[in-house]
Amino acid sequence: MAQAKVAVILSGCGVYDGTEVHEASAILVHLSRAGSEVGMFAPNINQMHVINHTKGEPMEQNRNVLEESARIARGKISALSELDSKKFDAVIFPGGFGAAKNLSSFASDGTAMKVNDEVEKTLKDFYNEKKPIGLCCISPVLAAKVFNGCEVTVGSDKEEGGKWPHAGTAGAIESMGSKHIKKSVTECHVDDKNKIVTTPAFMCETKLHEIFDGIGVMVNKVLSLTK
Amino acid sequence: MAQAKVAVILSGCGVYDGTEVHEASAILVHLSRAGSEVGMFAPNINQMHVINHTKGEPMEQNRNVLEESARIARGKISALSELDSKKFDAVIFPGGFGAAKNLSSFASDGTAMKVNDEVEKTLKDFYNEKKPIGLCCISPVLAAKVFNGCEVTVGSDKEEGGKWPHAGTAGAIESMGSKHIKKSVTECHVDDKNKIVTTPAFMCETKLHEIFDGIGVMVNKVLSLTK
Repeated sequence: MAQAKVAVILSGCGVYDGTEVHEASAILVHLSRAGSEVGMFAPNINQMHVINHTKGEPMEQNRNVLEESARIARGKISALSELDSKKFDAVIFPGGFGAAKNLSSFASDGTAMKVNDEVEKTLKDFYNEKKPIGLCCISPVLAAKVFNGCEVTVGSDKEEGGKWPHAGTAGAIESMGSKHIKKSVTECHVDDKNKIVTTPAFMCETKLHEIFDGIGVMVNKVLSLTK
Repeated sequence: MAQAKVAVILSGCGVYDGTEVHEASAILVHLSRAGSEVGMFAPNINQMHVINHTKGEPMEQNRNVLEESARIARGKISALSELDSKKFDAVIFPGGFGAAKNLSSFASDGTAMKVNDEVEKTLKDFYNEKKPIGLCCISPVLAAKVFNGCEVTVGSDKEEGGKWPHAGTAGAIESMGSKHIKKSVTECHVDDKNKIVTTPAFMCETKLHEIFDGIGVMVNKVLSLTK
């Protein structure tokens, strides 16, 4: 196949108020190794809040999602409003609380969550053009909300002694009318009908290289669906 | 060997004013795969400045190096003043301009650079205990300054048509009395006598997975020197 063009959607820079940096980096390493061309995008909006990551507490500061995402993108990033899905073969969303705070309101509203308009349009555009959508960590809630009835994984629906600290997310996905599939951190789930590929990533409390590898499985599956 | 304990020293979060996030992530993935135990540290000081990474220009804001580094460390980080080298087998410094702006003054002072006191103490402690020191990207200037006469690489001393945009750094290393060794991005240089292991990483304008792999070579060499 020709080199795939993949859009990666960021939500800030840092697990507690933005994109989980190791998930984003893993996605970009695997895309690079596969020879993909990457375009990075983020909404040009204020973050829900700024978290001091040494304390896990909010700081009195405003930060912009696009500007902070540019730290991961090394400056090579565009506003999500400029994303033309027709120029790309697939879209991938890393996780981090930014997906639940800036790309949607899942962190505060739970199953009554709203999805950012540009994010919803992005998801629907790729879906309607039958292009694959990859998501990891908490980001699968975006697909579960926008594509009611789809299948996604966020790992396990049980905490299993602290291995899955956010296991309640699986129930939220079911409550929103989608289907949760249990998967390990080194696997992905493929919803073939909807071309949605998901992997648990940091929903699992585990070694970083296992998260890296699971993301590789997701990325390569997304790329195979562009063929 | 027993599981190696490795200290990783961060300098913020973002290539233009802190730690290069992909370099830090690559170091942590390779350490995780090797079964190493990691402790992350950063100086508890203000950043030299804050760069808006969409524009490459300073913003009117103050940020703290330790707090921003915690974004990469997912909160699991300590002040560099608390690092006890006796509890670790090796130390690794990722790059990013933070190494030249927050850990030292190389970005503004060039060969007249000063190294942050805690950073200098950290380097000397590991050196005096004959433990390996790994550095990548621009960070080798720290070793070149502190350990006069040592051998490091930052890639090439020639721009080679844009492949090495910061090639002048090699000359600065020589001016400070240390020796620059030319290496490709997927190699590392080992100064066996001083146990200093360096790799070019983002000093090279290339594909992310090559940077990831070169960092893997450096990390594994550092670990082999702990034996």
